[in-house]
Amino acid sequence: MGNHLLSIGELEHQDIEELLNRARFYQSQSLYQSVLPATFQNRFVANLFLEPSTRTRFSFEVAEKRLGAQVLNFQANVSSLQKGETLYDTFKTLEAQGVDAVVIRLTEEGILKPLSQRLSLKIINAGEGKSEHPTQALLDLYTMKSYFNEIKGLRVAIVGDIKHSRVARSNTYLLQKLGAEIIYSGPQAFIANDLKGTYLPINEAIKQADVVMMLRIQFERQNEGRITSTESYREEYGFTEERLKLLQPHAIILHPAPVNRGVEMDDIVVEHQQSKIFEQIHNGVWIRMATIERALGGDRRWVSSSKVDEFGIKMNGFSGIS
Amino acid sequence: MGNHLLSIGELEHQDIEELLNRARFYQSQSLYQSVLPATFQNRFVANLFLEPSTRTRFSFEVAEKRLGAQVLNFQANVSSLQKGETLYDTFKTLEAQGVDAVVIRLTEEGILKPLSQRLSLKIINAGEGKSEHPTQALLDLYTMKSYFNEIKGLRVAIVGDIKHSRVARSNTYLLQKLGAEIIYSGPQAFIANDLKGTYLPINEAIKQADVVMMLRIQFERQNEGRITSTESYREEYGFTEERLKLLQPHAIILHPAPVNRGVEMDDIVVEHQQSKIFEQIHNGVWIRMATIERALGGDRRWVSSSKVDEFGIKMNGFSGIS
Amino acid sequence: MGNHLLSIGELEHQDIEELLNRARFYQSQSLYQSVLPATFQNRFVANLFLEPSTRTRFSFEVAEKRLGAQVLNFQANVSSLQKGETLYDTFKTLEAQGVDAVVIRLTEEGILKPLSQRLSLKIINAGEGKSEHPTQALLDLYTMKSYFNEIKGLRVAIVGDIKHSRVARSNTYLLQKLGAEIIYSGPQAFIANDLKGTYLPINEAIKQADVVMMLRIQFERQNEGRITSTESYREEYGFTEERLKLLQPHAIILHPAPVNRGVEMDDIVVEHQQSKIFEQIHNGVWIRMATIERALGGDRRWVSSSKVDEFGIKMNGFSGIS
Repeated sequence: MGNHLLSIGELEHQDIEELLNRARFYQSQSLYQSVLPATFQNRFVANLFLEPSTRTRFSFEVAEKRLGAQVLNFQANVSSLQKGETLYDTFKTLEAQGVDAVVIRLTEEGILKPLSQRLSLKIINAGEGKSEHPTQALLDLYTMKSYFNEIKGLRVAIVGDIKHSRVARSNTYLLQKLGAEIIYSGPQAFIANDLKGTYLPINEAIKQADVVMMLRIQFERQNEGRITSTESYREEYGFTEERLKLLQPHAIILHPAPVNRGVEMDDIVVEHQQSKIFEQIHNGVWIRMATIERALGGDRRWVSSSKVDEFGIKMNGFSGIS
Repeated sequence: MGNHLLSIGELEHQDIEELLNRARFYQSQSLYQSVLPATFQNRFVANLFLEPSTRTRFSFEVAEKRLGAQVLNFQANVSSLQKGETLYDTFKTLEAQGVDAVVIRLTEEGILKPLSQRLSLKIINAGEGKSEHPTQALLDLYTMKSYFNEIKGLRVAIVGDIKHSRVARSNTYLLQKLGAEIIYSGPQAFIANDLKGTYLPINEAIKQADVVMMLRIQFERQNEGRITSTESYREEYGFTEERLKLLQPHAIILHPAPVNRGVEMDDIVVEHQQSKIFEQIHNGVWIRMATIERALGGDRRWVSSSKVDEFGIKMNGFSGIS
Repeated sequence: MGNHLLSIGELEHQDIEELLNRARFYQSQSLYQSVLPATFQNRFVANLFLEPSTRTRFSFEVAEKRLGAQVLNFQANVSSLQKGETLYDTFKTLEAQGVDAVVIRLTEEGILKPLSQRLSLKIINAGEGKSEHPTQALLDLYTMKSYFNEIKGLRVAIVGDIKHSRVARSNTYLLQKLGAEIIYSGPQAFIANDLKGTYLPINEAIKQADVVMMLRIQFERQNEGRITSTESYREEYGFTEERLKLLQPHAIILHPAPVNRGVEMDDIVVEHQQSKIFEQIHNGVWIRMATIERALGGDRRWVSSSKVDEFGIKMNGFSGIS
């Protein structure tokens, strides 16, 4: 019934629209301080973070609890779950224990897809090595859509370590699918050969962009092309206070957080009115609610009891609120 | 009101039957996707895992949450809670905070029983050194009973490191009490002098068994009789693909999980149709629900509102669902 | 709407009284085994323990869950959150994710107050360096009030490492505000120059006290004035069995727990009938419920549906239970 969310590539245009609509619906519900629905109180979601990340785990956990689902948390270092086969046993164990969906972050790439085909529980990718981070791309899109009517033709500059960034990859796939134009900027050593897009110097990139998406410098992930100093990185590739004057007045600034303040982004840029970083975090909860609902097989009961025409959501299978 | 579960020895035949009946009841409820009962929403259960174990902790946590109880999780390394007196203070603290039951896993043996006599909160043993793991034995029994009408006379082969295994001990006590015949098999160094039962070579044990219960090789627990290599262990004492042909067609294969695939058990044996490993994990949730319900003083309200005659459960004290 | 709780100094007499009344109300409700209220089921509280403490975290977590709030747990070592700015980003992230209140324990002093002024979520201080631990002082007061009619004029002896103790500081501020007389006792090296009060030898302090509040020796916090041996500490400054005969018959003994048995306090003193240590822990839950309710903006609906005249609580804004 439900659906995995492993990569942007598996989402049709309609899937994307439905996820965004459901996110908007949950956001609108929140304004009314409505109580949690009872729909998912019998469903279990496990958060498996094999790379530590409190922020993303909290975002998913809040989403799960707002849906009324039961939450299990598991944090491990990679070493204890190294092989795909072992991860298979872990998933099978969770499945046997009645877990309906697993939110997973891990360093290994390419093992989730084959695993998912052998399981009935649903997998949500919360960050997979350098390859994908689909819910981040969806929440970024959601944030952009609240400032721009059209994604088609939008010029999005992604700045930083493109090569090692799953955020850059998922955003590129999603935004190019919707017709946006991607510009990249960053050190020579961080060029991603697998991604299509123009590389520009940072000043030029900021000047041209409707959206400037800064990436986090992952000091822990730099094996190659290592940064000689944070100060020189800031000078050459950071969004400094001086570069704010290059920014178009209608443009917005995004960052997946947490920001290395004073490295890839100055304090004043983080706090600038065109920066939407905390809005992104806020929107993340609604996107993740939509993603988890989709993984659990959906809930159309709530929809029908609300005014949802504005979101264009089709009603199917309404059976009353238990 | 409630009852500790510290060891198999403290369970009368009637207790065992009641626990199994309640587990079956909870399993049957699950099929109807029924909502969680509100009975235990005011009760607190703390999971204290002083030896790390995500799988068993998750099994208990799912059980607790399916009962609607409030769950507190605590994982520590042994060093911070070394002395019995300190553990006493921990229990007294939890008791003072309103915790009704504690699920505990620990390395030290023999301290739970005397502690339990000084407490009003109830203790559930989730693995105590090498001595006991009663809920594992109960879920193994529950799994066997779904394949065999009679436990009396059943031939159960326990294979591996008998000496250091709390699973072997609790299963032996429980199955012998019910009239099963226990066969052991494993390296000379792993013979348990405290347990009654015949030791046979593995080929002979598999050939004779109605149930083959493989144990996990605990590499971290081998101080004596150390294994020279996993390959030679597999050859001499593992359930290899070749040994499958010795297995009787009606026999089942069990393992407490997680399996060291390719050491005590080949992949093909794990996935074999006579292997019931993931069924054991599944059944663990129902057994643990029954155990926690028993610790919390029981809930007979739910029973009376369902068809339970088939399980032979007596109704007492029904007072309606609040 | 809600209120931070960062320090005793910010509490007016009326605030203190109201917190104690609400604690008493929650304690009285508990006796009736009443179900959890639904008022806070849409509210999120995050427990951020940057110094490890399972006991205090559990106390808060039980309180939060008894209120029906949603709970997020986060435990980190100090190193990952060192700078005030970074902690600001963490709080802003939680705020953006919809967290309403954060319970925090940390080593750094003086950063919570300025942070709180830049946030809309509410902060509850669960232990801040050596400076304050306000909920501990409130629960100690609550415990004293169940034994003494008047705090004014009460003689409270605080014994141990006064200098490094946030418990000593918060208790001093709270009890002196209410007119109690504070006596200190402890090693020369542990005198706190910032606190007003008489230092007496321990025998004299115990003899004069209505309340003897023993402090925990924090072995990990002794940089200066180091203890040469636990045995000599016990002899000179501990509450030994011999010193029990100095205690007035109406006096009570308190300790913030966990006790170093045999160091600052003998076993027989911990278990003595005049010792109220586990009562303090028990009372902590009610005080923390009141504190969290206050942080979340209060809940007066529950009040009006109960007999609360005895607690002197004013009703405002009752709107029925949803």
